Amino acid sequence: MKITVSKGDLLTGINVVSKAVPNKTTMSILECIMIDATGSSIVMIANDLELGIQTTVEGQIEEHGRIAVNASIFSNIVRKLPENDIYISTEGEKINIVCEKAKFSILGKAGDDFTYLPDVERNDYVTLSQYTLKNIINKTIFSISTNEGNGMMTGELMEIKDDSLKMVALDGHRIAIREIGLKEKTKEEKIIIAGKTLNEISKILGGDTEKEVKIYITEKHVVFEFEKTIVVSRLLEGNYYNIESMLSNQYSTSVTVKRKDLMDCIERAALLVKEDDKKPIIMMISESSMKLKINTTIGSMDEIIDIEKTGENMNIGFNPKFLIDALRAIEEEMITLYLVSPKAPCFIRNEEEKEKYCYLILPVNFVTVD
Amino acid sequence: MKITVSKGDLLTGINVVSKAVPNKTTMSILECIMIDATGSSIVMIANDLELGIQTTVEGQIEEHGRIAVNASIFSNIVRKLPENDIYISTEGEKINIVCEKAKFSILGKAGDDFTYLPDVERNDYVTLSQYTLKNIINKTIFSISTNEGNGMMTGELMEIKDDSLKMVALDGHRIAIREIGLKEKTKEEKIIIAGKTLNEISKILGGDTEKEVKIYITEKHVVFEFEKTIVVSRLLEGNYYNIESMLSNQYSTSVTVKRKDLMDCIERAALLVKEDDKKPIIMMISESSMKLKINTTIGSMDEIIDIEKTGENMNIGFNPKFLIDALRAIEEEMITLYLVSPKAPCFIRNEEEKEKYCYLILPVNFVTVD
Repeated sequence: MKITVSKGDLLTGINVVSKAVPNKTTMSILECIMIDATGSSIVMIANDLELGIQTTVEGQIEEHGRIAVNASIFSNIVRKLPENDIYISTEGEKINIVCEKAKFSILGKAGDDFTYLPDVERNDYVTLSQYTLKNIINKTIFSISTNEGNGMMTGELMEIKDDSLKMVALDGHRIAIREIGLKEKTKEEKIIIAGKTLNEISKILGGDTEKEVKIYITEKHVVFEFEKTIVVSRLLEGNYYNIESMLSNQYSTSVTVKRKDLMDCIERAALLVKEDDKKPIIMMISESSMKLKINTTIGSMDEIIDIEKTGENMNIGFNPKFLIDALRAIEEEMITLYLVSPKAPCFIRNEEEKEKYCYLILPVNFVTVD
Repeated sequence: MKITVSKGDLLTGINVVSKAVPNKTTMSILECIMIDATGSSIVMIANDLELGIQTTVEGQIEEHGRIAVNASIFSNIVRKLPENDIYISTEGEKINIVCEKAKFSILGKAGDDFTYLPDVERNDYVTLSQYTLKNIINKTIFSISTNEGNGMMTGELMEIKDDSLKMVALDGHRIAIREIGLKEKTKEEKIIIAGKTLNEISKILGGDTEKEVKIYITEKHVVFEFEKTIVVSRLLEGNYYNIESMLSNQYSTSVTVKRKDLMDCIERAALLVKEDDKKPIIMMISESSMKLKINTTIGSMDEIIDIEKTGENMNIGFNPKFLIDALRAIEEEMITLYLVSPKAPCFIRNEEEKEKYCYLILPVNFVTVD
């Protein structure tokens, strides 16, 4: 293989496909990026067998061929090369990388054991802007479970119905739901996408409102296609939790508050919580103000913030982290909490058509202190 | 104690004195900042017994008193408070921190076991700009030994003689020497300052050429005084190495090269060196160019750069890290290496009056490959 690629294009390609290179693996081929110039273009691929990413890099092919190269070594070398064209050639498994007067030789792999992306049928698709997809992922993904043993909780539900796309994440203590409108009606789909895939996708997406992503869904895979890149991920198998049964529109108390005031206050309270500690923050809701209190081994804190309230007064306790996560994911200036009782879930939701959200948080028991 | 301080001033004070709070200690009083408002001003102090820092904070004292507070908890709380006045009061060992509607209570310590800064006699002093001191530290300190068992190598020599101040750092493989002129002649001094002190001082110093630092030296301590802050550090005891005997002005080969070209090239070569690997970079000096080569378990690299040379051709090997550290500490566009033989130290030095430097690096043996 003999190819010439500009440093900038090569580095962009490496950064994109590297997202599918696992941090830790005992299979050295998985640590590799495949550089494939056997066809008419230069393609780079990484595949950890759950998640595969392929991207096309601009450049000249002088001699066809392919080679697999350790992603981290290759990336470090390219990053440090001068901003100029890079000439990559192979002699057997030896890779020569030349840029201006710098010449590197490193050992690659023929890559016979490299797994290319699965050949997924791509017919129907949903189109979103890169910004919208990145956004809906970032505003829900914090609610998935990070415990690998938790099966479907480690992924997110993506539900497409009529002309809307809904994403749901839950970890047993909270649920995050976001729903957006689509430009046109599409085939109904209900899939569970691995959290890792969504995390990596959201890092690669440019956040551009003008650029699009196509999402293809098959029985076993989801494919994201944008610009020169294709991301293929195996779906998590199983039936997702029945969300509808957990949601309710009834409430006895609603509290409307400036999001930033509430968030700042809870962030301050959280300073007193050590990592393994599970001390709740207690909201004491009264007529036009709410007192927030926390009492831990480090110290105590209380603060009063202004609210608009309907319904009954109530004292209710929460894990401050869950509240902070939800409040950070909302952009609106004012938010409303809907409460049923100190033992029932709290909902933060809006009913706007454009981008609906619903964050459900389970309360925690607390010992009354006042 | 009852005091009022603006958040900004308080946080600046905390950040300064926190540099003397050890990361790990079994003595909980060392983790504390003493807030002392027993006198006419509000003073904050931290002292790990080797290094002590004291700073004065603007504010109002309503009731005199003092309290020691855990530095990390206090710093986290203050950082998250609104940008406004903070009212701190004590009830026994309880500390109340109030800012706008937020009220914190944490437990402090009466601080009877807190060690104030030693009362060091301050007579003669040397004056430098903050920029100059920060600079001379940063450009030498990387050459000290980080191995705590290495005694005096973990500190730097500061030598004041006539109207110049010299700092020396060495770790057995290399020496860094910087010398600057002083405005006036001062008493001759030769002290060894702990690396930790120098590191922390260089972080606190603002890097301002207009603002000054006074350095006082006594038999056992060095004191840095600037703006509202006093830093006291115990000196390392003993006689420093005899540097003069290691230096030499004789050479058989001199190589003048663009600093950035050489540094970029060695940085690229260093990519092929694993942490525990000790593979040298080999410089093959010929008439008007120098080939740099490295060969490791990861791969090989070579690059040719333009030089101006006097004297004999030579092949010599170095630990690339030591060369990179020295080259990063130099600002000049062109540098000159002075070499005696492949077994003798290499010197990178200038002879300019304004700010002299000399970096000595020992070569390493290598197996000839070409």
